[in-house]
Parts: sequence; C-alpha cells; structure tokens
Amino acid sequence: MDNFVFRNPTRIIFGRNAETGVGKEALAAASRILLHFGGASAEKSGLLGRIRASLKAAGVEWVELPGVVPNPRLSLVHQGIALCRERGLGLILAVGGGSVIDSAKAIAVGVPYSGDVWDFYTGKARPSESLPVGTVLTIPAAGSEASSGSVLTNEEGWYKRALDDELLYPRFSILNPELAFSLPPGQIANGVADIMAHLMERYFTNSRPVELTDRLIEGTLRTVIHVAPRVLAERDNYDAWAELMWSGCVAHNNSLSTGREGDWASHDIEHEVSGIYDVAHGAGLAAIIPAWMKFVYRHDVARFAQYAVRVWGVEQSFDDPERTALAGIARLESFWNSIGLATRLSALGVGRDRLAEMAAKCSSGGTKTVGHFVPIGEKEARGILDLALQ
Amino acid sequence: MDNFVFRNPTRIIFGRNAETGVGKEALAAASRILLHFGGASAEKSGLLGRIRASLKAAGVEWVELPGVVPNPRLSLVHQGIALCRERGLGLILAVGGGSVIDSAKAIAVGVPYSGDVWDFYTGKARPSESLPVGTVLTIPAAGSEASSGSVLTNEEGWYKRALDDELLYPRFSILNPELAFSLPPGQIANGVADIMAHLMERYFTNSRPVELTDRLIEGTLRTVIHVAPRVLAERDNYDAWAELMWSGCVAHNNSLSTGREGDWASHDIEHEVSGIYDVAHGAGLAAIIPAWMKFVYRHDVARFAQYAVRVWGVEQSFDDPERTALAGIARLESFWNSIGLATRLSALGVGRDRLAEMAAKCSSGGTKTVGHFVPIGEKEARGILDLALQ
Repeated sequence: MDNFVFRNPTRIIFGRNAETGVGKEALAAASRILLHFGGASAEKSGLLGRIRASLKAAGVEWVELPGVVPNPRLSLVHQGIALCRERGLGLILAVGGGSVIDSAKAIAVGVPYSGDVWDFYTGKARPSESLPVGTVLTIPAAGSEASSGSVLTNEEGWYKRALDDELLYPRFSILNPELAFSLPPGQIANGVADIMAHLMERYFTNSRPVELTDRLIEGTLRTVIHVAPRVLAERDNYDAWAELMWSGCVAHNNSLSTGREGDWASHDIEHEVSGIYDVAHGAGLAAIIPAWMKFVYRHDVARFAQYAVRVWGVEQSFDDPERTALAGIARLESFWNSIGLATRLSALGVGRDRLAEMAAKCSSGGTKTVGHFVPIGEKEARGILDLALQ
Repeated sequence: MDNFVFRNPTRIIFGRNAETGVGKEALAAASRILLHFGGASAEKSGLLGRIRASLKAAGVEWVELPGVVPNPRLSLVHQGIALCRERGLGLILAVGGGSVIDSAKAIAVGVPYSGDVWDFYTGKARPSESLPVGTVLTIPAAGSEASSGSVLTNEEGWYKRALDDELLYPRFSILNPELAFSLPPGQIANGVADIMAHLMERYFTNSRPVELTDRLIEGTLRTVIHVAPRVLAERDNYDAWAELMWSGCVAHNNSLSTGREGDWASHDIEHEVSGIYDVAHGAGLAAIIPAWMKFVYRHDVARFAQYAVRVWGVEQSFDDPERTALAGIARLESFWNSIGLATRLSALGVGRDRLAEMAAKCSSGGTKTVGHFVPIGEKEARGILDLALQ
C-alpha cells in the first residue's frame, strides 16, 4: 500500500427534500452568495424556486449567474470571478451537475487570485486559497460534489484541462435523489459511464497490496451495475436512485484512492475528444475505456482477470487467464451497450481525420505521457483512439 | 436508504515513518499540548522518544500524562482536564490505541465544560465545544482514530458509557502499520474482533435498501478475514498490517453507516461485561456477538444468509436459508477460535453469578432497550448472556 494523506471535509446532506435546508447551510458560510447554475431545467422543475425561497428565509442575499454548459467554459468563470469581486460575495452555490460544480470551483479559486485562473489548470500556478463552494446536485455522474477536482474548457484552442487540489472540496453538498428523476435516459447513461470510469481509473493500478480498496471499488461497481438498469426502467425509483447517487459520490471522493495510484489516461484522452467535439464526458469515456483496456490488458492479465471475476461474475479460466480478462472487457462493453451507450467514437460523430491531433494534444505534442498503469505517449494514444473509433 | 448527514474531517497521515511528522501536525493546532499515553510499551519501543524529538524540533511544548489503562478511567480524565486548564494546553496528542484516544477525547471535551465531563457520557449534557485531538495509533482495533465516539469507565459503580458527537473526530491521525509489529498475539486477535464487530454492528440493520454500504462492509470484512491470520503468522508483514490498520479505521469512521441504522446491542451488553470484569473489549465482543446472532437471526434470516454467502463464502441453501444463516454464524465462531479468541464468556472468567446484574445494568433496570435490529430489554439481554456463557 502506498503512503498517503487523506482528508475529505465535505459535509454531505443526503435525502428527500434535503435542498430545503440550503439557506441555513449557505448562511453558515456567507450572507451574500453567487447562485450558479445552467439553464432552463432547474428553473422549470421548480428547484431554483425552492432554493431561492430557502435562501430568502435564511436571510441570505444572492446574485445569479446562469449559463453553464456541459464542458464548462473559462469565459463564464471569468464573469463569475468579476461578479464575486464587485459584489463582495462569499460563497459559490452550484445548482446542477458536474459542469456547474466545476465552474463554481473555478470561480471560487479565481476570486482571491491576482492572475488568470487558467494558470491553475495549466499548472503555471497552484491555488493557495479559495472561497467556499456549496452544491445542490442534480446529476449523479461527475462526483465533483465531494471531489478535489475541477475540469474546465478554454475556448481559445478548445483546451480542456483538470485541476486537483484539496482546496476544491466543497464545504457542503446536498444530495436528493428525487432531483434526478427528470433526467433523460441518455444523460443517465452518460452519468453511469462517468461513475464507473472513476472507479475503473482507480482500480487499474500498479500499487501493491491494495486489497481493501480493491474490494471497496469492486463493491461500488457492482452496485452501479445492479441499480443502473433499474433507474432507467423506473425513472422515479427513489431507492435505486439513492444507491446510484451515493455510489457516484463515493466513486470520486478519494476514499477509494487511498494507498494506490490511479491511472487516468482514459480521462486525459477523453478530455481531448470532448474538448474538440463537445460530446458528453461520459459518452466519450464509454468509447475510450474499452479501447484503453484492450490496448493495455497484457500489462497485468491477473488484474484484468480479477476485475472480470469479481466485478462481472465471469468464471475464471484457470488455464487461460487471458480469456477471463478479455471476457471482463466484453462484459463491460455489452453492459454499456445495454443501457444505450455507444462504445465506439464513430457513433459520437468522431471521424478519423482528427485522431492524430487529439493524440498529439493529450501528449503535449509527444513530449509527455499520460496514465500510470501503463504510460501512454502520442503513439499509444493514437493506438487507443484507433481501437476506439469503430 | 435513510436520510443522513455525513462529514468526517479527520486528516489521515498513513505510512512508514509517518509519526516523524507529528510535531508539524501538532503545531498547526497548538504550540503547547498534552502528550497522553499508556504505560511502558510506547517508551520501551522508542516511539515516545521519536515523538518527543519531533515535537521539540517543531517548537511544540508539551506536558505528559501517562497512565491510561484498557477501559480508560474517569479519574485520569479529570486529572487531564485540570492539567490542560492549569497549563493552558491547546491540543491533546494521544499516543496509543483506542483507550488512550478515548481518554484524550474525554479530556478534550471536558476542558471547556464547566460541569463534570461524565455528564456527556450519561446524556445529562451535550458538548458544545472541544479542544482538538491528534493521535498516533499503535493498535488497529477500536477505530477511535477517525471516529466520533469515546468510551469511558466511571470507577464509582464501574459504569462504562459511550459518547458519540461530531466534535470528537480527531483533527489528525497518524497511522504507521510498523508501530503494530510488536503487539502480542492476544491483543492482535482482540483488535480483529473489535474491527469485525464495528462492521457487523453496522451490517445488521432494518434500513432498506442499503446495497452500496452492504457491499462496502462485506468487502472490508473479507479483507480483515483474509489478512488477520497473516499478521498473526508474520508479525512484521507490513503489507498485511497496512490492510488491517486501514480496515480498522474505515470500519468505524462512519462512512459505512451512511443511510443505515446500526444495531450496537452487542456493544452495549459487552460494555457491562468489560465494565465489571475488566476484560478487553474485543475479547468480550467475541463471546457476545455470536450469542447475539443466535438470539436474533430469525428476525431476518435472509440478511443472515446474505452475510453467510457474501462474507464467508457459504453456499446458499436455496431450499433452507436458515441453514445458510446458521452456517455463517458457525463460520464466524470457528474463524475467531482459529485466531485464538474464545467465543464463550466462561473462558474469560465470567461466571453465572453476575449475568442478571449485567442484564439489568445495560437495560437500566429493565426500563430501556438497547439495539435497533432487534430491541433488547433486560430479559433478552439475559438470554444473550446465557447463550454467551458456555
């Protein structure tokens, strides 16, 4: 087990009607806040109305900044930073999914920083302080509600980059599974892929031994695999949504990273796909991850066999572990297909013409590798993208 | 899934030599601290020497309060409170196992309280503030290093009572598996029983659905069952100790309680046993829990069958789930026996003569019940104690 330091201070408030307490939670952090969200759906569903009522009842003043889009943009973050400074706002309250939360985190670290917040995403600078962030989660997927990460897209060049820092854990996150009832099936499936990707990125590691966290990841994956078809079949099944929403949070709150190094090459490659094509992150991962698995499994056949047996219930072929390993990858693909996910980039409108560009971008023009299980350079990234294409 | 609020702010610093950073961690909380520990073993091993050196190097001043015994005593806590007040100490640093940490927590909540700290343990008052606590863990067992609980014994009447409050999460805990290498086998086995008890108390619940946390608890139990014989056979096996130490912490850090109500009747009954007989908590639990299981399993045969199949690998008897359930209980007993634990109270020197007194005490003279899976009153507690005796 690798040495580690772990602390996740996010307060989770989980359950039916949990969002009605948001005013009180917000007030504990600040009396003037930025209310940050996406578009019409949170308005139409009445969620924003309930949140405004709760803020008002608690005596919290707020300024609204809507307009977050999937793959959230740097330009809106700049607007949010300016607003917070001008109006003296002390908390960013994100209402939405991972994109809104990631945008809120970027605003929060940007406000006290004298340079451009994009510096944090390129690695040019590290944040040393942050405003607090609160969230009301509407989409189980990105896990940003209790993570130390944020992913942002710079429209100048369509670079999509990630920041990871302890300062980015939200102060509080409100998780009410009922808020996910109205999600369309495609978005649900993308969320499932994202959650499973967070678990599998952590699972494929060279750290040894990692027995406890292996078993915790396997159990979380099995839960997601078990409940995902149920939320798709019965969209108002609170019990199944509760399992999925809590699994999505646990998958990315870093408790399952303790003592092990994750891989994350698939995330880095996918960021280039969704940076250029603006496809949903989960949809891109559903095509990249099986291709990545086929590209790297020979590096540790035993680990892929363990994954197949413990996560997918594949029967171990003791005389041919490679067959077991490949069966696990096939089971993942067929499961994702069964919930409506394409596992090829061609189905997402990606053509062969820009694969070389994406491989070059994710390896900074062939000057660095991504991933830790197997280091992936430009050539390897191109190999994975080729496998993912069709 | 039950509604829940969860936040565990303890910083875990895990790995080889981790204790050498204790001075820096302590200084972040206070420059004058109480160094609290048990007896000779931490001195003899050189651990206290290393800690003093680290404190000194960081410029931290300290006052020492040794003398914590298993089932820690209120009288020493009173001494610690007085010392902290007289000397203006701002952090309690516990070096040891659960007893030392629980004693430190009691001192920490007692210092700012004008009444007797025992009030918190009887429920007469709730703590509203606390000094910070740091820990250097030497025994994987009680889980107090990242829990919100503390158990204390009042020598006047030998009452052993528990306090649970968010204020009791340590500020930081340092976990170096090497510090456990020198533990004697009996103490290791008691610790294993304590860790497994924390998991099983959470597992047996009436909350539904609890799929994710079921699987996480099962995975943690399987890890403990897998590594415990290894640490007993190879006492300096860092890898196995690391899995056990991290499992012991995860078992009781409340992440596995999310969305479910635990039982805890066995803990309450055992507190009466170790309160009177001064046996180790883990040793008492090893006798009480199998008896509790035999007493209550008919309340939910399916859950006990799931436990048998998923934790112990028992083959499900589909035509006779009760057989499966009983096989799981038998497997627990034989596993505990295999690592040197007695599963009968008679082996711990407990006789029939005081069973009635313990049953009365844990039910407050028949006026209340303990446990949530099945409420246990005086009569039921006596039934369990009878089953546990021989």
